[in-house]
Amino acid sequence: MLVKRSVMDEVGELIEWLASFGKTAGGGVTRLLYTPAWKEAQHALKKKMEEAGLQAYFDSIGNLFGRLEGTEAGETILTGSHIDTVIEGGKYDGAYGIAASFIAMSRLLQQYGAPRKTIEVVSLCEEEGSRFPLSFWGSKNICGRYGLDDVKDVKDADGIPFLHAMQTSGFSPETYTSAARRDVHRFIEMHIEQGMVLEKNQNAVGIVTHIVGQRRYTIRIEGESNHAGTTPMPFRKDAVSAAAEFISYLTRKAKELDPLLVATVGRMEVKPNVPNVVAGEIEFSLDIRHHKKEIMDQFCADIFTMLEKQSEARQMEFSISQWMDEDPVELDTEMAEWARCIVQKQGTPFQDIVSGAGHDSQVFGTFCPTLLLFVPSHSGISHSPKEYTALKDLEAGVALLEEILYKIAYK
Amino acid sequence: MLVKRSVMDEVGELIEWLASFGKTAGGGVTRLLYTPAWKEAQHALKKKMEEAGLQAYFDSIGNLFGRLEGTEAGETILTGSHIDTVIEGGKYDGAYGIAASFIAMSRLLQQYGAPRKTIEVVSLCEEEGSRFPLSFWGSKNICGRYGLDDVKDVKDADGIPFLHAMQTSGFSPETYTSAARRDVHRFIEMHIEQGMVLEKNQNAVGIVTHIVGQRRYTIRIEGESNHAGTTPMPFRKDAVSAAAEFISYLTRKAKELDPLLVATVGRMEVKPNVPNVVAGEIEFSLDIRHHKKEIMDQFCADIFTMLEKQSEARQMEFSISQWMDEDPVELDTEMAEWARCIVQKQGTPFQDIVSGAGHDSQVFGTFCPTLLLFVPSHSGISHSPKEYTALKDLEAGVALLEEILYKIAYK
Repeated sequence: MLVKRSVMDEVGELIEWLASFGKTAGGGVTRLLYTPAWKEAQHALKKKMEEAGLQAYFDSIGNLFGRLEGTEAGETILTGSHIDTVIEGGKYDGAYGIAASFIAMSRLLQQYGAPRKTIEVVSLCEEEGSRFPLSFWGSKNICGRYGLDDVKDVKDADGIPFLHAMQTSGFSPETYTSAARRDVHRFIEMHIEQGMVLEKNQNAVGIVTHIVGQRRYTIRIEGESNHAGTTPMPFRKDAVSAAAEFISYLTRKAKELDPLLVATVGRMEVKPNVPNVVAGEIEFSLDIRHHKKEIMDQFCADIFTMLEKQSEARQMEFSISQWMDEDPVELDTEMAEWARCIVQKQGTPFQDIVSGAGHDSQVFGTFCPTLLLFVPSHSGISHSPKEYTALKDLEAGVALLEEILYKIAYK
Repeated sequence: MLVKRSVMDEVGELIEWLASFGKTAGGGVTRLLYTPAWKEAQHALKKKMEEAGLQAYFDSIGNLFGRLEGTEAGETILTGSHIDTVIEGGKYDGAYGIAASFIAMSRLLQQYGAPRKTIEVVSLCEEEGSRFPLSFWGSKNICGRYGLDDVKDVKDADGIPFLHAMQTSGFSPETYTSAARRDVHRFIEMHIEQGMVLEKNQNAVGIVTHIVGQRRYTIRIEGESNHAGTTPMPFRKDAVSAAAEFISYLTRKAKELDPLLVATVGRMEVKPNVPNVVAGEIEFSLDIRHHKKEIMDQFCADIFTMLEKQSEARQMEFSISQWMDEDPVELDTEMAEWARCIVQKQGTPFQDIVSGAGHDSQVFGTFCPTLLLFVPSHSGISHSPKEYTALKDLEAGVALLEEILYKIAYK
C-alpha cells in the first residue's frame, strides 16, 4: 500500500497532539472523566472541529460532537470513540478512533463538500470506568440506557461525587437534559485491537464480527490449614493444591473447547499465606469470554461440575460468586461486508476478528447497526505507555473509514 | 489403661499452671524469649523445682535446670523441652515436655530417692524462633553450636537487639560464660505430635525414629502480563496457569514417590493480581520434608527438571532460590528400642513415627544419644489455642518417661 508521507503525518500528528492533554511523567496519558486534562482535551478538540468547518457542540453530559450536515434530513451517521483513558494509559486507545473519524470526515468535506446524510464525529466522554465505578457513561447516555439517576450515589476513589465532578467540569446537572438520541441510525468505531492477533497474522485491518460476552467470578476453595511438616499428604485439605488442579483443568478445557474461548485466573489470595503452613483457603478470580453464549454456558457447566466433583473427592468446600455477566454482541453484518469489499479493493490485508475487550460499539450494537474496525496493536500491548501502532496501519484505518463513510453518507 | 484420677490431674494441673504465664485474651499462650511472661514462667518453674527437692539453676543464657544428683559422678541425663511459644500458641507445645519430665522425676525421687546417674529436667529457653529470627537458641548453646557472637546483630520485629532483651530479662551478656555442656550424655524429650497420625491410628505414643530434613525454596515464574480478553490462549505466557500445572505435578509426584514425603506450597504472590489481566509473574514458596536425604534429592531433581522443561515449552523464565537446607537427623535406635519394650509391657498402643516438625531433639540428636517421644495432638492442631491432648494421653507419656528414666538412671 502506497501512502503519501504528508497524509501519514496527519494522523500521527493528531494522535501526538491529543496525547499532550494529560501527558504523564512516565510517557503515558491519564485523562479521567471530568478532570482538567479531560476538559482541556475536549475543548481543544471542539476548537479543531470548528476550524475544520464542522458544527461542534457538547451534549449535557460532555459528549462532544462535530456535525457535518447532510443535504437530506433525518438519519445521522455517528462515528468516533472515547476521549477518556485509564490511569497511565497509551496514546491510541480511544483517541485513535476520534482522530481517524475526524480526519476521514475532514477529507470527505474537502473533497466532496456536504454529504447526503448527516455525519457526526463523536468524542465520547467516558468508556473506561477508570475514575468512577461505571463504564460507557458516554455511549449509554446517547443510547438512552443511562441518565443522571444512575450516578447520583456514585463517587470516585477520593470520595468526590460524580455529579460534583460533572458540575466543576462545566456540565451542570441543573441544566441537564437527556443526552439520548433518536436520529442516530448507524455507529462506526475505529479502535486499536489491544491484542496481538492482527500483528501475528500480518493483517492491517480487523473487521469485528462480535464483541465477546464476559463472565467474571470470585471462587473460594476452603480446605484446612495444617502444619506443613506433620500432615501427611493423604490427610491434607490443601486449598492451593486443589486450586492448582482446577486451574490446570480449566486452562486445558478452554483450549480444547474453542480456539476463541479465553479463561483467565488473574487474581489470587491465599490464607494464611505462610511457607510452612498448608493453605486453608484460597480465593481467586475467573474471567471467561467468548462471542457465543452457548460456548460460555457449556464451558461453565463443565468446569463447575469438575470443581464440585473434585471438592467432593477432597472433602473440601467451595463457593462461586458471579459479579459480571455481559452477553456477547453481534455487530451489523451488512456494514462488515461493505468494509470487507473496500479493504479488498484497497489491497489492505485484513481479517474478521472477535473483540475480546469491551468497546462503546457493544452499547451501540444493540441500539443501531454498528461497525467496529481494528488496527494492529504492537505486541498486543494496551493500557500502557508502550501502546503503539505503526503510522501506515493508522493511515490504513483512516483510508478505510473514509471509504465507508463515503459509501454510506455520500452515495 | 487404668490410671488413677489423682495422678492424671497432676499433669493436667501443671499444664494449666504453666499456661497461666503469658495467657492471651484469645485463650492462647504467648511466651516469647526474654519477655516478662517468659521470665515469670521460668522463675515460677525454678521455685517449683526447688519445692520438689531439685537443685534448680539457670545457665548464663536462661536455660533452667532442675538437678537430681546421682550417686555416681559423671554422666548427666537431660530431659525436658522448651518454655517459649509462638505468638498465640497452645498450652502443650514445649510446656508438656517440661511438665512430663518434671513429674516423672518427682515421682522417681519420691519413690526411689537419689538415682545412680544424675538426671536434670531442663526448661530450654528458646526453640520456636518466634521473637528473633533464629531458632534453637537454648539447645544449640548447650550443644556448643551457638554463643553470644551469633546474636550480636540480631533484632526482633520492634528493632530490640537480642543482647538488650537478654540483659533486661536478667541474663547479662557481661557476666556470660559458655552454656555448653560436656557432661550431658543423653537427652530425652516428650512432645505433642503436632500432627494427626497417632490420633488417626488410635495410638497413644509415638516413638520418633527420625526428624525430617527440610528444604525451603522461593520459586518465581515470569511470563507476560496481557489483556485477559484480547490475548488468545495459545499466545499467552500465563504465570498463574504455569504455576498451577507445576504445583499439580509436584503434589502428585510427592504422593507417588514416598508415603512420608511432604511438599507444600503455602505462600503465593501474583503480579499484577488483577482479575482481567493475564498474570505476568508469580512467586511461591515450596517446603519439602523427608527423613531421607536421597528421597529429597530425587524429588527435587525430578520436579525442577519438570519446571525447566515446562518453562522451555511455554517460553517462560523461572528462578529457584533455596533459603533453608536442613539435613534429616536419625535418633538413637537403642533408646527407641527401650521405649518400645516399656510401652509394650505397659499395654499402651504405640507406633514408630517420623517427626515432620523441628524439635530441640534434632540439635541434641547429633550431639548425644537422643530419644524423642510423641503423644497425640487432637486433629493435628498445633501453634493454636485449639491445641489439645487428652489427659489420659498426657499421663501415658509421663508413665513411659518415668520408666525410661528409671531404666537409664536407677538400674
